[in-house]
Amino acid sequence: MTPLILVTNDDGVRAPGLAILAQALQAIGQVVIVAPDQDNSAASHSLTMKRPLRVKDLGQDRYSVDGTPTDCVTLALGKILPHKPQLVVSGINPGPNLGDDVSYSGTVSAAVEGTMLGAPSLAVSLAGEEPFCFETAAAFAVTLARTILDKGLPKDTLLNVNVPNRRPEEIHGVRFTRQGRRVYDGAIKETFDPWGRQHYWIGGGTPFWDEGEDTDAQAILAGYVSVTPLHLDLTNHAALRKLGAEWKLSI
Amino acid sequence: MTPLILVTNDDGVRAPGLAILAQALQAIGQVVIVAPDQDNSAASHSLTMKRPLRVKDLGQDRYSVDGTPTDCVTLALGKILPHKPQLVVSGINPGPNLGDDVSYSGTVSAAVEGTMLGAPSLAVSLAGEEPFCFETAAAFAVTLARTILDKGLPKDTLLNVNVPNRRPEEIHGVRFTRQGRRVYDGAIKETFDPWGRQHYWIGGGTPFWDEGEDTDAQAILAGYVSVTPLHLDLTNHAALRKLGAEWKLSI
Repeated sequence: MTPLILVTNDDGVRAPGLAILAQALQAIGQVVIVAPDQDNSAASHSLTMKRPLRVKDLGQDRYSVDGTPTDCVTLALGKILPHKPQLVVSGINPGPNLGDDVSYSGTVSAAVEGTMLGAPSLAVSLAGEEPFCFETAAAFAVTLARTILDKGLPKDTLLNVNVPNRRPEEIHGVRFTRQGRRVYDGAIKETFDPWGRQHYWIGGGTPFWDEGEDTDAQAILAGYVSVTPLHLDLTNHAALRKLGAEWKLSI
Repeated sequence: MTPLILVTNDDGVRAPGLAILAQALQAIGQVVIVAPDQDNSAASHSLTMKRPLRVKDLGQDRYSVDGTPTDCVTLALGKILPHKPQLVVSGINPGPNLGDDVSYSGTVSAAVEGTMLGAPSLAVSLAGEEPFCFETAAAFAVTLARTILDKGLPKDTLLNVNVPNRRPEEIHGVRFTRQGRRVYDGAIKETFDPWGRQHYWIGGGTPFWDEGEDTDAQAILAGYVSVTPLHLDLTNHAALRKLGAEWKLSI
């Protein structure tokens, strides 16, 4: 049976990375696109619960939702698709999703939501700046999708994939990595509006990476594709054992 | 030296749970409030990067920001506070933050951001429905805050605290727990607007909890306070070792 593949993103249904990804995945399954009608970058895992959402059928198995990437996956699996997809692929994000940034990412959150709803899911990002070689990331997404359809994924686990923004022949290989830390310095810029009132822009700044050789960021810096298995359980189990043994708390 | 304590939330600067929490924490430190000017529930870890943010000084160490809980913590630590706080406390959320819901929660995300920026952080939620006994959760937050100021927290780790919505004498004790799973069934409601167009509301539905005795949700059901250590590293390390050994991928 042809696998059903949901493709979504956080940049909106008209983003070029989405179209190239969907087209590439048509080689291995029936692709349905359900994506936000607008750019939702840095939407993180937000869910729209205070207003109703509208779904637009754009034809040719493409739908838009006036909400977040998480809304798209929720509505796709709950209402739009005929059955649970064999795979959810989110991307291709034009820019990296590495280290702490993963937590803000709408691209990754869509794959988190897919995983929560029981569908094997991956997020695909292109690590670099314009002009973007979306084709490189799309081709690797197909390779990885084939493997997942064949072998499955560990329980409650998604893959966060970052691909260097180069031609395939300029990439050194594929590394399985852990999520590193990324800390911004001076990431707030003060500005004034036309009436002299102070405002603050969040963004920019120089990122510091942690030094681990085995991190997502280091793989990209070394010219490798980074594949990081992330899981839904955020518990620090070592800390749980330690605090449970050492801290005596009462109400 | 008196510790500096940042208090924030996702329900907005005028929420009663915030005021009761801030007042209680004044017993052990200098409290500064930086909170969203509006309700930001289910904002998750979103960061506002497409427009500048405005900070309003409301007097008496209270500030509002026209953004998300994550924006509030970023601006508080980057611009508003005189130095890094000894503690960030987010809450008190009127309603639980358990299991998978943690990932959508603005309350918890504020504590995640505090942790990313290097300040010991906790999120406090009241598990129940109106009327809310905020005082119970506030008193426990003070107990826990004292312990954290004394002992510190494990690296890159925050505490997600859920308190039963009862008087203290009706609570059986405190449990350290792991984050459980929560899966909704039928959480989408179809409606029509005045023009007959179909819309979808996300929300409601009956949650299924996983059966682990050691989870956050089970502690609450059993009448205990739940304290879950969450960490910033989302990597599934067991899956990383397994996939790294077994999957051969090339570009």
